[in-house]
Amino acid sequence: MYPSSLEKLIEAFRLLPGVGAKSAERYALCMIDASEEDVESFAKALIDIKTKLKTCPVCGNLTEEDKCSICADESRDHSTICVVQSIKDIAAMEKTNEYRGVYHVLQGLISTMKGILPEDLNIQSLLDRVSEDTKEVILATNATMEGETTALYLDKVLSRKGVLVTRIAYGLPMGGHLDYADELTLIKAIEGRKKL
Amino acid sequence: MYPSSLEKLIEAFRLLPGVGAKSAERYALCMIDASEEDVESFAKALIDIKTKLKTCPVCGNLTEEDKCSICADESRDHSTICVVQSIKDIAAMEKTNEYRGVYHVLQGLISTMKGILPEDLNIQSLLDRVSEDTKEVILATNATMEGETTALYLDKVLSRKGVLVTRIAYGLPMGGHLDYADELTLIKAIEGRKKL
Repeated sequence: MYPSSLEKLIEAFRLLPGVGAKSAERYALCMIDASEEDVESFAKALIDIKTKLKTCPVCGNLTEEDKCSICADESRDHSTICVVQSIKDIAAMEKTNEYRGVYHVLQGLISTMKGILPEDLNIQSLLDRVSEDTKEVILATNATMEGETTALYLDKVLSRKGVLVTRIAYGLPMGGHLDYADELTLIKAIEGRKKL
Repeated sequence: MYPSSLEKLIEAFRLLPGVGAKSAERYALCMIDASEEDVESFAKALIDIKTKLKTCPVCGNLTEEDKCSICADESRDHSTICVVQSIKDIAAMEKTNEYRGVYHVLQGLISTMKGILPEDLNIQSLLDRVSEDTKEVILATNATMEGETTALYLDKVLSRKGVLVTRIAYGLPMGGHLDYADELTLIKAIEGRKKL
């Protein structure tokens, strides 16, 4: 229907998660109306992430340098390691401006359903990294079945090394209403109650 | 937060209509996981639409050749011209496989609100194009205020040239329920009733 170069762009947009035929068409047509400069820098940004970005050898975060900006930051507390599933979770944690330790990205979660085993994840490098200087490893995987399984596994292997292993808290989200919370969340909220 | 090349890609995705910070981030991270080949062809497609695509001088459709594929198609009825707002509408019409005439793309609609006047649109080329050989001009602009205004204006200027001007039908959409249709649609559906 459309000229082939436009069809190819529509196809490319369909690679994106949750983008169907209609949205892909809308995005591609929007690019036609966009300035040449914007489209060129879009294309350049795409090429750049494949050529410039690499994985931080320490924590698995993305970086353009030898180490990621967090691992390279001397002002951070390198004795506290927060273990997350993906780099997206680092971004979420960093937005809080609260956590001053470093991270470790698993690049996935253990899943018997999907056949993902501990050895498929970035776990060995975590074990290698934990030393006598490590004060605490915080397990910040998702509050899902897979996140839990992974946290339990990590707790088991890390505890052998004698390091303090903690898990982030479960409970009612801030702004959350009791009557909208599911039972499991409420059970966890009650279990995790604290003295005021 | 993210390395700068990734931030730039997130920014680029935010140019897309209806894409906010969260979706742009998701799209950019998806590109990191995508194969190098896919990302390269995505970038190439972006460059190509700016370098290869041009506007068909006859109808205003997009093309990579001198004329668009529809205007160049001798098997089509060049004496019937369907006037649409944008190239997207051509795609929608062509999907029906019903219409065999040619098109004319206005590249917008007359709008007093947005200050879009007839001279801002691709209307002069339509008037130049309509000749003695033209049997019919079908006005297929949207059923909105602006679409109507534009259709009324085109009817006025085209009728002077003595050509048959028609407007696509209004009514209940196929699969539509009477009790869900708005009043204006129902009024138009009754007005436009036909003998069976």
